[in-house]
Parts: sequence; structure tokens; C-alpha cells
Amino acid sequence: MSTFELYRRQYNPLLPASLQGTGYTLKKGEPMAPVADGEEIAKQFPMTTNLPAISIEPSTEQSKLLEPLTIGVIFSGGQAPGGHNVLCGLYDKLQQLAPNSKLLGFLGGPKGLMDNKHMILTKEYLATFRNMGGFHAIGSGRDKIASTKDFDAAANTAAVEKLDGLVIIGGDDSNTNACLLAEDFIKRGLKTRVIGVPKTIDRDLISKRGIETSFGFDTSCKVYSELIGNLCYDALSAKKYWHFIRLMGRSASHITLECGLQTHPNICLIGEEILAKNMTSKQVFEYMADIIAQRAANGKNYGICLIPEGLIEFIPENNKLFDYLNNKLLPGWQGEITAELVAQKLPADLKVTFESIPPTIRTQLLLDRDPHGNIAISQIETEKFLVSGVQQVIKERELKLKFSALYHFFGYEGRCAAPSAFDSSYCYGLGSVAAVLLGNGITGYMSCLKNLSEQPDKWIAGAIPLTSLMNIEMRHGARTAVIQKQMVDLAGRPFGFLVVNREKWAEQDCYQQPGPIQLIECQDVEGRNVVYQSSVTLLEEARGL
Amino acid sequence: MSTFELYRRQYNPLLPASLQGTGYTLKKGEPMAPVADGEEIAKQFPMTTNLPAISIEPSTEQSKLLEPLTIGVIFSGGQAPGGHNVLCGLYDKLQQLAPNSKLLGFLGGPKGLMDNKHMILTKEYLATFRNMGGFHAIGSGRDKIASTKDFDAAANTAAVEKLDGLVIIGGDDSNTNACLLAEDFIKRGLKTRVIGVPKTIDRDLISKRGIETSFGFDTSCKVYSELIGNLCYDALSAKKYWHFIRLMGRSASHITLECGLQTHPNICLIGEEILAKNMTSKQVFEYMADIIAQRAANGKNYGICLIPEGLIEFIPENNKLFDYLNNKLLPGWQGEITAELVAQKLPADLKVTFESIPPTIRTQLLLDRDPHGNIAISQIETEKFLVSGVQQVIKERELKLKFSALYHFFGYEGRCAAPSAFDSSYCYGLGSVAAVLLGNGITGYMSCLKNLSEQPDKWIAGAIPLTSLMNIEMRHGARTAVIQKQMVDLAGRPFGFLVVNREKWAEQDCYQQPGPIQLIECQDVEGRNVVYQSSVTLLEEARGL
Repeated sequence: MSTFELYRRQYNPLLPASLQGTGYTLKKGEPMAPVADGEEIAKQFPMTTNLPAISIEPSTEQSKLLEPLTIGVIFSGGQAPGGHNVLCGLYDKLQQLAPNSKLLGFLGGPKGLMDNKHMILTKEYLATFRNMGGFHAIGSGRDKIASTKDFDAAANTAAVEKLDGLVIIGGDDSNTNACLLAEDFIKRGLKTRVIGVPKTIDRDLISKRGIETSFGFDTSCKVYSELIGNLCYDALSAKKYWHFIRLMGRSASHITLECGLQTHPNICLIGEEILAKNMTSKQVFEYMADIIAQRAANGKNYGICLIPEGLIEFIPENNKLFDYLNNKLLPGWQGEITAELVAQKLPADLKVTFESIPPTIRTQLLLDRDPHGNIAISQIETEKFLVSGVQQVIKERELKLKFSALYHFFGYEGRCAAPSAFDSSYCYGLGSVAAVLLGNGITGYMSCLKNLSEQPDKWIAGAIPLTSLMNIEMRHGARTAVIQKQMVDLAGRPFGFLVVNREKWAEQDCYQQPGPIQLIECQDVEGRNVVYQSSVTLLEEARGL
Repeated sequence: MSTFELYRRQYNPLLPASLQGTGYTLKKGEPMAPVADGEEIAKQFPMTTNLPAISIEPSTEQSKLLEPLTIGVIFSGGQAPGGHNVLCGLYDKLQQLAPNSKLLGFLGGPKGLMDNKHMILTKEYLATFRNMGGFHAIGSGRDKIASTKDFDAAANTAAVEKLDGLVIIGGDDSNTNACLLAEDFIKRGLKTRVIGVPKTIDRDLISKRGIETSFGFDTSCKVYSELIGNLCYDALSAKKYWHFIRLMGRSASHITLECGLQTHPNICLIGEEILAKNMTSKQVFEYMADIIAQRAANGKNYGICLIPEGLIEFIPENNKLFDYLNNKLLPGWQGEITAELVAQKLPADLKVTFESIPPTIRTQLLLDRDPHGNIAISQIETEKFLVSGVQQVIKERELKLKFSALYHFFGYEGRCAAPSAFDSSYCYGLGSVAAVLLGNGITGYMSCLKNLSEQPDKWIAGAIPLTSLMNIEMRHGARTAVIQKQMVDLAGRPFGFLVVNREKWAEQDCYQQPGPIQLIECQDVEGRNVVYQSSVTLLEEARGL
């Protein structure tokens, strides 16, 4: 273990007042209907729809100790900083409320539950992982509990291990799955209660109903912003490169927006805006080229451009084109495939779209198809796609300017970082809430902490029904109840902050270097303790309330 | 400015005892001859060869104040964390020793000196840059002062501005240049003294004669190691990827070695070792494939591999092959170039080398040649070259194993990071030393701080003649006196540390996560203040003394 890790293990996360002692009061609020399609969801989730919001409030009276519980826990999906602290918060609170409880960590994600591969999590074992990054204490996996056989297997494990509860730490799909399990266990007459924990660096699991942020977003954005801030000064010092930086986050651009707010780049593309404006690739290239040319005219042949991973899919014409190629044109294709031949056979509007893709990328796309012969949008290196497009515009406009691009992709680097002070405490608190909920026999809920722009002792603990996050969407051709992904809100304050500033940021060098995450309590120049300060996004949203 | 930057600006770097007050004693030691080719160097550098080592020792007596000096300063070459603190240390010490001195920052590197483009550095202006990353206070450049015209221009600026001294902050080539300027100014009868400051994240400017590390190495390795540590846990959590990480450092592998020592990867390739063992590409692929296969046999389809940027050039057969292609085969080439045709025309031994290059890379190399038609080794994405080679070996051996690779390149992300506590104080001290030397009319020296494995107050200040770092090398066909690059010492303790541990690291998961750079003084579990602790390399070298 590194010195940093030894040091960090000794940190005690902070808890809101209601979770500090053994005393608390559970209060039930108004019933919470699904975000949409309530009746249809109620049919699928008869036992867990329209449940009330729950708040956990401080109480000076000690709650009486519970009989020992047996609780299982799973990581589901991609890593996010703070996962280990959910385990620790869950474990510690269980031991406090129901001493001698048993915590089973299912190994390698949902598959571990179905196969009943688990380990008993002890205080000693967890000590190694306190405030540490990664999910390796029990591993994670991307399997889904989908078929009847899968649900039978999960129920079998729950019955064999006499699980009182199960905590599923995951993203939107995993939490939809958690709710299906909650219903299924009730139907089978099992005592196993199910609680979800909102995990994803992408932040698309937020909800105005009580999820201010998903865990991991704060830390990973701080890691990426540290690097982007360094690259800002690199651009400014060398004065000869444009750094194009692609950031994780395929279905929503929260990460790119947050990193933009932290570092003030010259260009910050937000997929949701491009979708809302129905922009074409060409329009995006031109927007970028305008800024690059304007800076060059001011003697600035350098800059910083942030790009969300999923950008290409946000451009509506691309989806139409790729859909046509994959489902109409390519399946029956005979003979050699060249860009020219493909262009000839496309309808006029799609031909325009196809030809707006830079030639090298066009050829590469046709060559590098997946095993089913499909073109995979996600395989396109978005930053190279954009730069090729910008170079095309520069050529067409006959602009004489120096334009040298360097490429970066930041994603994996942030997923397993040691959690920030914010995420350390947030995750520990989410685990504690899950323990309180399970100790009270609550099922089908998401563990929640609110008021996160304040210091941790002022956070508010509670829970919302998982179904309250759901709507109906088409999945594999069927109407399916799923947790609604939350995209960047174009009417929200965080995006508004970008809009108000981006022209200035484009022209001038307003770069900020947020620096490496500091984990020791420290005051800013105005004497505020800043170590628990979370994302700009969250602060801006709190100001908007 | 970010909160971090506001906070960081207020930090006061620490100085060794001899630089804290106005009192000090300069002591001259034994003459220091060049590392090799002393006579030849003495002819080229008659005024600055065989000068004595200088140490700056504490004194309780106050030195008398000097008349105001006019000093110029330049950043030369690539950015390294801490550069701004050299400016601040130089400025502060000048004001202390010779109040009302004038510090001219030449803009954009050596070209700023030749063109006399400068700004006056004031206390107010520098305040913004204290303990901050980047070189953007005055900018940097890669121009060399090479021709007679260039030297005339530099001398003209020195004369016009009545420079008493010039500080050149740069790498090996820039410091060779500094010494040429020192000689030239003496010959011309100018009063301008020249002092070099050892800057490069690559660390190839070290010397057993008194340069324990070059500035920026500590910070940038810590930034890269933070990310590598995160990727280690990512590999361990997801259990399905090998992360291949290329690291900056073309001519020496110090960065890769240091990052390896900080994070304990499964594979850590050191160019110097591959050169010393005269390994072929195929042998490197096989070494890697052995480890990957062994881990797979143990159920571990994941891992971490560190690769120095310059690896391909360390493989002797590659240099032979590329030399032959560029200078013999390709210049007279008629008609289409294909890998097959090229292979046919190569001598037998080079044909073997050529065919050991993975086919996709071979084709790409022939297609993507530079404007002169040359194949550029440096353009090969080394990590993809290695993985292609490993895949080839897996195929040849008919191994059945899951092997999924992800690629990363870390370089630009570290060059402009805010300096670590170590680099903040080291750079501030190097700037202070330069001021003391110039105040005493010393020229042709490198500013030095030694004993760096101790806390800053125990560091030892001094200087060594720039010529003492030189030997004669062939440059553009001529015998030229240059500062000798220092490669990883295969007999040294840092490399030995890797060798002793690497079999265990290959097999087991001994990953360490060094975490983000912390800038607030903090104790490790044994009560030591660790904030000034520098690289493992430096600590190991100190233990070996």
C-alpha cells in the first residue's frame, strides 16, 4: 500500500446528523408516482408503485437494537469512485443497528448472486478498502437478471442464504433490475428486501425527486478536470497546439459540462444542445472552425476543446444514416464496398450526410465493421472525426492558419480513483441509509442523500421508490418500464453558466486549473472548508432552487 | 482562478539554510573536468572548462547589499512543472541581495532573447504565477542559438539591455547552449554572465556530479502515477482489460521506471535494458506474451503494462532497418510501395526484422511517411505496435486466451501540472541559487541543489560548471561538445528495485495507488512529513550512496 493509501484508510467519513447515532425517526411522505406512464408501471410493479417518499430524521432517543440481519450486496456495471465506502457504510450501520449482522458480498456482480458466489465481508477485510478506489473488494459485472431462469437463480440464493435484504449498487438499468427483484421477491413470498444505490460517473441517474447526484461523478470529474486544467496551461505555454479531449459519458454530457465549468475551455460541446438544435455534423464543424479561425486571427493558434464521448450519436442525421446503412443498404450488399459506391446508392438526404463525414473516417467506417457487418458509431474516435471535419472546413474556406491537433481520451483514468472527500462521505452515507431502510423492512427504494451543496452534517437522509424514477420506453421492440435517464437540462443553471460565458471563453484564455483532489480539510481564501465541495454543476443547481 | 490556485499562490516555498537569509559563504572546491574528451572541450570552451565546483554555505554574517543588477531569464524547450517558481526564486533573491534589480523575462524562449522581446517581471506580475504550473508567464520556445547571426543577436540584446546576467532554464541542449553563450559573451567582452537551470520531466539531465534530479520530473511522474494507479484498480475491478500505457520520455526511460516503482505494474519495459540486452522486437513481444499467458493461466485476463515512448528506437534492429529504408531503399523507389515488395528487396537480416513488425503497422508505416518520404519511427504508436506483436505471438503459439487491450498515452497531462511541494521548493531554490551566482559574477555554471531526499531545509546549495557535464558526440556529422544525456543506470538501485520485484509484480496483483498529489503538509503513519518526499528513484539513489 502506498503512503497515500495508508493515510487515506484512516479517514472517517462524515455523516448527516440523522445517521450519526443509533437514534433516528423514519417519516413517510406523500405517495410518489412514476415520472410518466404511471398506470402501466403500476401493473408491472403492483407492490412497489406509488409508495411514499421516506425521510430519515434525527432523534435524540436511541432506537432499540434489532435482531441480526443477513444482507447481500452487489456492484453492478462500471466502476465509480466511492463504491467501497458504500460497503463500509452499510457494514458499519448494520453492526450499529443490528449487531452481529452478516454482510455477504456477491462476487463479480449480478452473476455472483445468481451463482451464489459470495464472501462474508468482515471489519478486517473491509479495513483495506476504506476510502479506496476500485470495486475490487468484491468485483463487479455487467450481467443482467433478465430471464425467468435468472430470477429463479437469484431467488434461490436469497432463500438459501436467508437474505433479509439485498443492496444493488448500480446505474439506471441495474436499479430498474433492483426494482424487478424487489417485486419478484415479494411475489415469491421471500423476506428479502431490495434497496438500490445510485452509482454512475455519468450522472444520468439524477432526479429532481431526490437524487442530486450519482456517486463517482464528483471524483471522476475532478480527476479529468485536473488533467484538462494541466492541458489548458500546456496549450497556453506552448501556444502551438489545440488539445481535443474526449470525455466518458455516452448517453449524457454531464461530465463534459462539469469539466467545462471547472476549466473554462475554448470549445465545450454538449450533445443535448446539438440534439435540441437538430445540428448537422457540418454545422458542428463550422461552429468549431469559426472559433479556431477567430482565435488564429488573434494570433492564438492554440486552444482546448472538450467533447462528450457520445457526441456523434447526438447528431440526428448520423443516426438516420447509420440506421439506413445497417438495416437497408449493407445487409444485401454484393461485391466490394467503397465510399463512392455507397454514396451512389444512398437517398439524396442521406448522401449529403454521408459525404459530410470526412473521407478518411468514411473509409475507415466501411472497413472496420463489427462481426455482424454493422457500422458501429461508438467505435468512431469522435475527436478525430471532428478535427477531420474542421480541417475540411478550413480547406473549403481557404483559410490560411496554423492548426495542429493533439488528441486525448479520459475515462478509465477516473473510474477507480480514490474517492474525493465528498464522494467518500456521500457513499458512506448512502450505505448507511441502505442499512437503515433494510433494518426497517423497506423494499423497492433508492437510498438518497440530499442538500449536498452543504457540509455533510447538513445532508438530509431518505429514500424514494425506484418506480418513481421510471417511465415506459421501447426496448427490443417492447414497451418496457425503465428508469428514465436524465440528460443535461438545457434550461438548468449549469448549462446556463456555460452559455453565458462561452463566447468569452472561446475568445480569451480564461483557463482554470482545478489542481489535484486535496483530501485534507482546508480553507479557501474566504475561510470556507472546501474539501467537501462537490461539482460546480451541483452547486449551480442548488443555487437555482 | 480556481480555489486551488488561490490557495496555492499563498504557499511559501522552503529554502535550504544557506539561502534563507542574506548571509552566505561561497566556497570553491576542486576543478571539475568534463565527463570525457576534456582536452577537446577545453579548446572549445577555454574560459569555462575545468572550473571548480561551488558550494553556497550558511553564514550568520549578513552579506553586504549589492548594486542593482539587470538579469534576463528564458524558458527553453518543453514545459516542466515548477518553471514559474524558478522565476519567483530568482526574483525574490535578487531583490534581497541587490534591491531594485531588474528582471527581464524574454518572451517565447531563445527567440525572445535574439529579437529582444521581453517584459519586466514585477512582484505583482509574478504573484499570479507563484507555485503555478505552465510556462505561460513568459512562454517558451524550441529555437536554438546556433548561427553566428544568432549569437550576434543574443549579444546585441545583452549589450543593449546591459544585462549583468542571463538565466537559461532548459534541458541538456539548452544548457549546452547556455555554456556556448557564456563563452561567447566573455569573448566579446560583455559583462553578461550565464547560469543554467536543470529542467526536464525526462530526468536525463542528472549527473553524479551534483544534479540529483531535473525539475518537473517529480510532479509529472506523480501525475502519471496517479492515473496509472487508478488504471491498476480499474484492471483489478473489471478483470477483463489489459491497460497499455505509453509514457513520455523518448531518449531515456526514467519516467517509466519511476512510475513503475510507484505503481507496481505487471509489465514495465525499460528501453535501456532492451538496448543492453540487444533484444529484438520479437523477443520483447515474447517476453510480454509469456507474462500475459501466465496470468491468463491463473485466471487473470487483465493487467497493466508501462511502455517508454522511445521504446521502438531502443531496439537495435529497428534502427538498422529504418536507416536502410530511409537512406538506401526508399530514395530510389519507383512505382507502388507495398510491404511485400519492400520485403523482397531487403537484405536477409533486415527482412527478418521487417517481417517481425506486425502487418498492420508495417503497411501503415509505408503509407504515413513524412514529407521527405522517410519512415518516422517516432510516429509509431508504440503501444499498438507491441500489442499487435503480442497478438501475433498468441496466434503463433495457438494460445487460447482472452486478451483485450486498452491504450493510453500520458505526457502532455503532466508537463503543466501545478508543481508538487517538492518541485515548488526545488525550483524556488534553483532560482535563488542562480541569483546568488549572478550576484557573484559567476558564469558557465548550472544551479544545483543536493541532498534532496531530505527535507528542504537540509538541502545543499551550489553549482557545477556546465562543461563538467559535457562530452564529445557526433552531431550532423561533426564532433560536437554536448551535455551527456543520462540514461537509466542498469547498475543503479532504482532499476535494481524493479528487477528484484518484477517477477512477483508480473504474477500477482501488487498494484499501488499513489493517489493525487497532496499539497498540504501531512504525516504518514509513522509521523514523517511526506509532502516533500520526492520520487522513489531519488530516494533509492540516496540509499545507495
